[in-house]
Amino acid sequence: MALNLTQKLICSRLAEGEPVPGAEIALRVDQVLLQDVLGVLAMLEFEAMGLDRVRVGLAAQYVDHNLVQTDHMNADEHLFLRSACRRFGVWYSRPGNGISHPVHFARFGKPGDVLVGSDSHTPAAGAMGMLAFGAGGADVALAMAGEPLRLRMPQVRGIRLTGALPDWVSAKDVVLAMLRRHGTEGGTGWIFEYYGPGLEGLSAMDRHVIANMGAEMGCTTTVFPADEAVRAYLGAEGREADFVTLAADPGGGYDADEELDLSSLEPLIALPSSPGNVVPVREVAGREIYQAYVGSSANPGYRDFAVVAEIVRGRTAHDRVSLDINPSSRQVLANLAAEGHVASLAAAGARLHQAGCNGCIGMGQAPATGRISLRTVPRNFPGRSGTREDSVYLCSPETAAASALTGVITDPRTLGMSCPRVVQPAQPTEAVAMLLPPMPAAESKVVPLEKTENIASIPDLDPVPDALVVPVGLKVGDDISTDDVVPAGNRAMPYWSNIPRLGGFVYEGVDAGYPDRARASLAAGGHAIIAGSNYGQGSSRENAALAPRHLGLRVVLARSFARIHWQNLINFGVVPLTFADPSDYDRLGQGEVLRFEGLHAALRAGPEVTAQRADGSPLRLRHTLSPRQVELLLAGGVINWLRDRLAA
Amino acid sequence: MALNLTQKLICSRLAEGEPVPGAEIALRVDQVLLQDVLGVLAMLEFEAMGLDRVRVGLAAQYVDHNLVQTDHMNADEHLFLRSACRRFGVWYSRPGNGISHPVHFARFGKPGDVLVGSDSHTPAAGAMGMLAFGAGGADVALAMAGEPLRLRMPQVRGIRLTGALPDWVSAKDVVLAMLRRHGTEGGTGWIFEYYGPGLEGLSAMDRHVIANMGAEMGCTTTVFPADEAVRAYLGAEGREADFVTLAADPGGGYDADEELDLSSLEPLIALPSSPGNVVPVREVAGREIYQAYVGSSANPGYRDFAVVAEIVRGRTAHDRVSLDINPSSRQVLANLAAEGHVASLAAAGARLHQAGCNGCIGMGQAPATGRISLRTVPRNFPGRSGTREDSVYLCSPETAAASALTGVITDPRTLGMSCPRVVQPAQPTEAVAMLLPPMPAAESKVVPLEKTENIASIPDLDPVPDALVVPVGLKVGDDISTDDVVPAGNRAMPYWSNIPRLGGFVYEGVDAGYPDRARASLAAGGHAIIAGSNYGQGSSRENAALAPRHLGLRVVLARSFARIHWQNLINFGVVPLTFADPSDYDRLGQGEVLRFEGLHAALRAGPEVTAQRADGSPLRLRHTLSPRQVELLLAGGVINWLRDRLAA
Repeated sequence: MALNLTQKLICSRLAEGEPVPGAEIALRVDQVLLQDVLGVLAMLEFEAMGLDRVRVGLAAQYVDHNLVQTDHMNADEHLFLRSACRRFGVWYSRPGNGISHPVHFARFGKPGDVLVGSDSHTPAAGAMGMLAFGAGGADVALAMAGEPLRLRMPQVRGIRLTGALPDWVSAKDVVLAMLRRHGTEGGTGWIFEYYGPGLEGLSAMDRHVIANMGAEMGCTTTVFPADEAVRAYLGAEGREADFVTLAADPGGGYDADEELDLSSLEPLIALPSSPGNVVPVREVAGREIYQAYVGSSANPGYRDFAVVAEIVRGRTAHDRVSLDINPSSRQVLANLAAEGHVASLAAAGARLHQAGCNGCIGMGQAPATGRISLRTVPRNFPGRSGTREDSVYLCSPETAAASALTGVITDPRTLGMSCPRVVQPAQPTEAVAMLLPPMPAAESKVVPLEKTENIASIPDLDPVPDALVVPVGLKVGDDISTDDVVPAGNRAMPYWSNIPRLGGFVYEGVDAGYPDRARASLAAGGHAIIAGSNYGQGSSRENAALAPRHLGLRVVLARSFARIHWQNLINFGVVPLTFADPSDYDRLGQGEVLRFEGLHAALRAGPEVTAQRADGSPLRLRHTLSPRQVELLLAGGVINWLRDRLAA
Repeated sequence: MALNLTQKLICSRLAEGEPVPGAEIALRVDQVLLQDVLGVLAMLEFEAMGLDRVRVGLAAQYVDHNLVQTDHMNADEHLFLRSACRRFGVWYSRPGNGISHPVHFARFGKPGDVLVGSDSHTPAAGAMGMLAFGAGGADVALAMAGEPLRLRMPQVRGIRLTGALPDWVSAKDVVLAMLRRHGTEGGTGWIFEYYGPGLEGLSAMDRHVIANMGAEMGCTTTVFPADEAVRAYLGAEGREADFVTLAADPGGGYDADEELDLSSLEPLIALPSSPGNVVPVREVAGREIYQAYVGSSANPGYRDFAVVAEIVRGRTAHDRVSLDINPSSRQVLANLAAEGHVASLAAAGARLHQAGCNGCIGMGQAPATGRISLRTVPRNFPGRSGTREDSVYLCSPETAAASALTGVITDPRTLGMSCPRVVQPAQPTEAVAMLLPPMPAAESKVVPLEKTENIASIPDLDPVPDALVVPVGLKVGDDISTDDVVPAGNRAMPYWSNIPRLGGFVYEGVDAGYPDRARASLAAGGHAIIAGSNYGQGSSRENAALAPRHLGLRVVLARSFARIHWQNLINFGVVPLTFADPSDYDRLGQGEVLRFEGLHAALRAGPEVTAQRADGSPLRLRHTLSPRQVELLLAGGVINWLRDRLAA
């Protein structure tokens, strides 16, 4: 039978289940990626599972988020991660090496491999025919323990690309066009697979841009074929041996089909404060800007920076504009320097920052109050920049550079210069020197974990009780992101691995009274949260489940869930339920007490679970947990579950 | 009569007084330098004086301290400063242009000119025969108002340099040798003037290193001749027209003389936590380090970075070490990039940060708890790095680079490589493009100041009462720095211009109970502080006077004062007194109530002032205020004084 590429990749790694949309499948994992801010929890969870050496082919830990060191905490955390890598047999990428996704892509990316990463943008690796999934830290810790990755088989949407991009239009505009088409929920339950003649004009790093921001549509992942563009990329990195050609079978079909004519595209921009608010740049041209920000895993390629350098070469950024350049990796920085682009950027007035995630995650470069910041990053959720009243627009490097010169939002086609052609250096500077390889197992067993007072052990979580009487501690609307639950930025991120301390930050931008109310619920058995649709979109940060759980969260009733957060709730013993009748959302308010009885049996029998409202009337709810997930949930989460299994 | 160069420079700008050591003199000011974190207050003070256009030949505002933008506050502050520059006729150097001292040196430095700057390292400009003084913001605002700078004529120490520096020994080791000789107070009341045949081997930027850290010895300023090395420097910057030869008259003598044989020097290092704790590097070699930090106004020259790049070229920093490179200016960054040094540093594992003060002022790059950080910066006061339990050593770029490679403190002479020779680029990339010139006066009058809720107006300060009954609110020891009074770093610095908010940070590392006790004293007429010797050393931050004053501080009794802080206390209406009998320091404790009566007459009659102790016994105190300073103090400080004068 002819298969699409996604199906072929899944079948090649299938450990359990049938690859039928909706069925739970288990995939063998080849590689694991960790970033620092979620890696600490994953390492602590791995330790809590009672293990001392990874049981996966390759695991790599990157330090890319917590780079702003205004006190001891982030530096202490880096030393902890280094010690954990040495203890557990993990590659360690030190601070300044760059963002996990492009560095991993360059050093370890391998067509056909299954990659699980503790970061929602892990699917970027799909750009070279990998099957790459973002997951919570606990799922990554499971993969490190040698467990297969379990997920519901998504549907596969085939996107046939035709035509070629016009001048001044680049890969970011392609994915913004897709976001314009599908919104921030259109990919939920889907894998997007790109193919067709339009691929010819897209380099491996262009595809990385598109695959990366599949996360913003809610896609389970994104897949591109491994073709000559991928061979060229790996060859330039000195790794052609890792290349294999991968493509859909002739005649392999999709669960849904669409086409995108690249030649029809124009420069696009996402308005505040959602990646889904996409309009043509020309419609908002002329608005005064404060900042043009270039960097992040969404535009990480050499060309994404070089094109900016070419546009501003010999000119200067408008004197009101902060032009912030954030190289995605040490390799990109070295190549930009070697090709004269750093000098050109500096002369144009750019502020050049260390390689890493930086302002994309609110770690520096926050804009002035209410002023417009143009960014090449993947997300513009409110306040994620670090400035509460921010106004962040997402765009291509070309649009950011053009606007930096004029001081107002500018369609780059109106700049009046010819479109620069960026040539990738034939022999890129090697990126790998600064990756510290795993220690041999014999030596690593005696390496102590360098914990500090800010790296608290994972709190013990009790099993889910059979009966729950829980007040609604908070009611929120649609599209709540994990940034809303656990804020990013320099204030909160140093505490992301310190769950007791993190509690005070939970939901602070939405309802600052929540932590106190939640804590007050603890003695009486916890509380519930009511939510609209797409609950938990965005980043894969599992502390957005663990921190509320530690404050007494027992159950979330939502119209719908984002996939990774749904899994994270299960992993930490929080029951995720949806409304049988979506209009019940409107009938429930903060403070109402809900009763669940015989919950264990109901979840095991599932899909339906009934609660009792305050007036005694029934509230009909549903779950979509597999039998395995029910047991894992009832055990109080994944750590208890795996520890019990290993002990048995 | 034959004069030394200092005397010649003073005579050329003398507006009032006799240049006799100890006498108050007034100097005409040619140039004014402001940095951001103290510039905001200076701009607000300038506004409070009722002025709207600078009355000095040249004023330049640099944004170099508050560059870590983790929320809106620093970005908002930059916009305020830009608006103030446009309103008041000041040059504006935007964020990322670099540190005030080297940028000002390159763009505006002019032998013979008098420069006043709101930063204690302003004397660095003495490296080219300027007479450059650090001062509090209010004194800078006065200079902007066209007032002469008033100070007590210091003594002049002549330091005759002989010999030439050995391999691996550089300018930083020269000034560390001076600190070893004179300690952190040895320069108090002195100007250090360097001369002699040893100058031949020191470039203008080498001299900048030495002049900069004269501040760490307490020097009023440091002076070098303007010779061929200065001509070469200005020529390379395209400004040879600004050069004039300046040197001491043959036979001009000094108030004290000493000699330093450069050929006798070896690599030196200052141990935690004072720049005065200097020992040879070899004595502490082998200690494991966490960080090697390169940058700051203390080692700002192109060669200070290029030599590091040459040492690490083709090697990699030890995997435990964070090698942090902080270009001092955009120009230095551009030149390093053009000469291949950025690529070399990146390949060696360096973290390259934006141009600015950065970690030197606790804005990022804080070390891990208790781990050793080697820095080329001027100061290692406890906690200034941002990490409370820090362990910061001050050294040369050569020592920092050698240690980065080995992972332990390393005398660079033991590296086993030949000493790199750095060649300054013949045509350095121009630094000036990103400086925004003053607006024409006709346009500037309508520019509004972009204040925000965090930029509070200067609080009104009442005159000094004739009778004071004040409890001792705090007793501190010797060498209290302004870092102790008002902490640096990302937590406190965004509030440096918000005096009401800043109050809560005052003395937090010394006695966290002080702000509450101080506020409690307000209703009853304020309080006093008892201090040891060298009170208020270090940074020129005037909020170290203004913030305690706002908390009710009325009088400081100290064994001795650092010059700039003493002036800042006067500028904000706090009475600075010394003990007639230094042993009285030991007899006084926190809580004792002191009474002053007839204070106005006593200060005017001066130098002796008598207070009454709790037991009724007299406490004999002294002041060294000039009659003008007494009036300024009694008026409640410089703003009231100038406003009254302008109104009269």
